Amino acid sequence: MAAVSEDQTLRQRALRVVPGGMYGHQNVGSLPAGYPQFMRRGEGSHIWDVNGREYIDLMCSYGPVVLGHHHPKVDAAAASQQLLGDSQNGPSPVFVEAAETFVERVRDADWAIFSKNGTDATTMCLTIARAATGREKVLAARGSYHGAAPWCTPRLSGVTTSDRANLIYFDYNDVESVRRAVDAAGGDLAAIVVTPIRHDTGTDLEWPTREFTQALRQHCDQQGAALILDDVRCGFRLHNGGSWEEIGVPVDLSAWSKAIANGYSLAATTGTDALREAAQSIYTTGSFWFSAVSMAAACATLSAFTCESSVDAMTRVGGDFVAGLEGQMHDHRIEARVSGPVQMPFLRFANDDDFELANAFSVECLNRGLYLHPRHNWFVSAAMSERDVDGALEATNAGLASVSKILEGRQ
Amino acid sequence: MAAVSEDQTLRQRALRVVPGGMYGHQNVGSLPAGYPQFMRRGEGSHIWDVNGREYIDLMCSYGPVVLGHHHPKVDAAAASQQLLGDSQNGPSPVFVEAAETFVERVRDADWAIFSKNGTDATTMCLTIARAATGREKVLAARGSYHGAAPWCTPRLSGVTTSDRANLIYFDYNDVESVRRAVDAAGGDLAAIVVTPIRHDTGTDLEWPTREFTQALRQHCDQQGAALILDDVRCGFRLHNGGSWEEIGVPVDLSAWSKAIANGYSLAATTGTDALREAAQSIYTTGSFWFSAVSMAAACATLSAFTCESSVDAMTRVGGDFVAGLEGQMHDHRIEARVSGPVQMPFLRFANDDDFELANAFSVECLNRGLYLHPRHNWFVSAAMSERDVDGALEATNAGLASVSKILEGRQ
Repeated sequence: MAAVSEDQTLRQRALRVVPGGMYGHQNVGSLPAGYPQFMRRGEGSHIWDVNGREYIDLMCSYGPVVLGHHHPKVDAAAASQQLLGDSQNGPSPVFVEAAETFVERVRDADWAIFSKNGTDATTMCLTIARAATGREKVLAARGSYHGAAPWCTPRLSGVTTSDRANLIYFDYNDVESVRRAVDAAGGDLAAIVVTPIRHDTGTDLEWPTREFTQALRQHCDQQGAALILDDVRCGFRLHNGGSWEEIGVPVDLSAWSKAIANGYSLAATTGTDALREAAQSIYTTGSFWFSAVSMAAACATLSAFTCESSVDAMTRVGGDFVAGLEGQMHDHRIEARVSGPVQMPFLRFANDDDFELANAFSVECLNRGLYLHPRHNWFVSAAMSERDVDGALEATNAGLASVSKILEGRQ
Repeated sequence: MAAVSEDQTLRQRALRVVPGGMYGHQNVGSLPAGYPQFMRRGEGSHIWDVNGREYIDLMCSYGPVVLGHHHPKVDAAAASQQLLGDSQNGPSPVFVEAAETFVERVRDADWAIFSKNGTDATTMCLTIARAATGREKVLAARGSYHGAAPWCTPRLSGVTTSDRANLIYFDYNDVESVRRAVDAAGGDLAAIVVTPIRHDTGTDLEWPTREFTQALRQHCDQQGAALILDDVRCGFRLHNGGSWEEIGVPVDLSAWSKAIANGYSLAATTGTDALREAAQSIYTTGSFWFSAVSMAAACATLSAFTCESSVDAMTRVGGDFVAGLEGQMHDHRIEARVSGPVQMPFLRFANDDDFELANAFSVECLNRGLYLHPRHNWFVSAAMSERDVDGALEATNAGLASVSKILEGRQ
C-alpha cells in the first residue's frame, strides 16, 4: 500500500473546505497527474513542494518572483518596514519612495497609484480613461488576459451581459480588426487596452508588429482615447521600465503587478500628466493599498533591477536555456516552437491541440526536477545560474525524449 | 520661520508623483488641518506619525488592526511562514488551515476562497450568486459601502451606466423599500447584499431590526436568491464568527477582509454547501491570492480571537470608553449621540451637517494624543488597556470642551 503523501492529505482536506479543492491559476486540477498542489518553500531559483521534492523554478510563482525567492536585500527591506508597521492609518514614507521610483524608472509614468491585484490596476486604468474622456467603450484583444474581474475573466460563469457591454474586441497584431473595432466604438472610445506581447495561454507568444503598435497609438490619438498597456505579466522582465519603451511607442496608462515587489503583494497604476486630473477624480481604494511592507519590498526590488542588471541577467540565462532547448528539439527531431522573449519563453509542440505532448514533456521535466507549465508561458528569474540552466536542460532533454517516444508510437 | 515637518515634506513629494497627493480612504485631504498624512509605526494600541507624535489608535488602520499593532503571536506566525515562502507556484499548507479555521469558526461557512481586497470578496459573492441562479439583479442598500469597484464605488467618476445596470437599491432597515426592490427585480433576483449593521460614513450607525433581517432572509428564500453578508468591516469585531450569528439569521455568502489577519493583506469569501458548485464554476484569481504569509497571520489571528477572547476584550474597553464619553457629553451639555457597537462606535453632534463640530472635536483629540475620525466610525482594538481608555477620555473631554466653546460662540 502506497503511503499517502503530504500533498494528497492536504488536497483531501482542501476538498472539504475549498470549492473544487482549489481555484484560479494555481489550481493544478487541469494539470497532468504528478503536479504538486501545495508548496513548502523557495530559495533563489529552487523550490520545494510539500512532499519535499526539489525543483528548479521556471514558473516563478507565475511571475512575481523575478530576483529569485528570498532575495536578501528585498527581504531585509521588507523586514525592516515590518518592524515599524505595515497596515496603518496612513501610508508610510516608503509609499512616496515607491511612487518616485516608478516615475523615475518608467518613461510614461508621471504618477503612480498602488493597489493589490493586477486586476485592480487594469480595472483602474479603464475607469481613469472613462473619467478622462467621458466615454464608455474600451477595445481589448480577443483572448488577452487582463485579470479576473467580471469585465475580463476568461470564464463567463456568473458574468452578466452588462459587465461586458462596453467591451469591443479586436485581434492582436491585426490592424484591420483594430480599425473595425474603433469604427464600432462610434466616437465613444475611452481606451484601448493591450498586453506588451501576445501571451494568451496555450498559444505561441507573439511580439507586437510595428504596424500594430503604431496603429493603436494613432487611433488613440485620433479619437482622443487612452492607450493602456497591461504590463502586469511582462513588466520589468523585458525592460527596466515600461515594456514598450524600446519600441518607442508611448502609452497613456500602465497596469503593473507581479514582479514589482519580487513576490510581495503589490500592484500599481501609472499614467501621464494628461491623465492626472482624471486619476484624481475617481474613487479607488482598498484596505491594504497603503500597506508599507510590500512598498518597501518594491523599492528594494526596483533598485535591484538596476544594480543587479536583472533584465540582462534574465536575458542571458534565458537565452542560454532557450538555445539549449532548441538544440535539443533539433537533435530529437521534434517539431515544436519556442516562442516569446527568452525571459518568459513558451514551448508548443506541433499537432498538439490536446496538449498530450506538452503534458508528457512537463511531467517528465517535473520528475527530473524542473517545474514548468504545459500551457502557460514560463518565467526565468535573475537568480537562475548557468548550473541551473544545465540542470533545466537535462530535464528538458528527458522531457523531449518522452515526447519522442509518444510520437514514435503514433507512427 | 516654522520648520517644515517630515509630513509636509512627504506631502510635497507625494503631490508630484501621486494624483492629488493621495487617494482613497487614507487621503487626509478632506480631514481638518492637523491630521498627519504619513505614519511611522505602531505598537499595541499606540501609533506614531512621521513627525514623531504618539497617539492612542482609535482607527486601527480603518479596521484591519484588531489585536493591536505587532501582536506577537501573529507576527511570529507570519515571520515563520515568510522564512519558508510567501508567493509560490501553489498555496502552502497554511492555506488549508486558514480555510478550515473559517469553516470551523463561522456558522454559515462550509468553504472559503481567499483573495486580497474586501472588494474582491464582495464582487465574488455577486458573481457566485449569479452563477448559482442564472440571474443578474442584485439588491443593495442605498449608501452602503461594499468596496471601490465600478459596481459599488461611492463616486461615479469613470463609472458607466452598464456597471450598475443590475443593481437595485433599497433603504437599510426599511422593509417596504426592500419589497419594492424585490418586485423591481421581477424574477431576475440573484442576491441581496447587506452590511451587518448600517455603517454609512458620516451618519449614525444603526443596528438592523429583526423585521428587516427576517424580511431579507424571507425574500431570498422565496425568490431562490442568495443573501450576502458584507462582513468586511464588522467581521470578528462583533462576534467570534459571522456578525449575524447571534441574531439567528443565516446567510448564504459572506465577504471578509480587514480584521481577519490583524493587518496582513487578506480577504475571504465564505459560503454554504448549496453554493459550492456555483463557487467552483466561476474563474476568480489573483497573483497574490495564494500568498502564504497573510494566511499564516490569519490562522494566528483567528486563534487569538478565541484564546484571548478578543470580542469580549473589545466590548469591555469599548464599553468603558463609550460610557465615559457619554458621561462627558452630559457634563458638557452637548447634544450629540454615540451610535453603533461599542467595538466600533461613532459620535455625531446635533446640527452638524457641515461637520464643523466633529472636525473641531477630532482635531482637539488629535492634539491630545487620540487618533479618531470626524466622519468615519472608530475601531477599538483588543490591545486597548484601561489606561488607554483613561487617556482617550482625557482627550475626548478636551475635544468636547472645544465643541462647547464653538456652541457658545454660536449663541
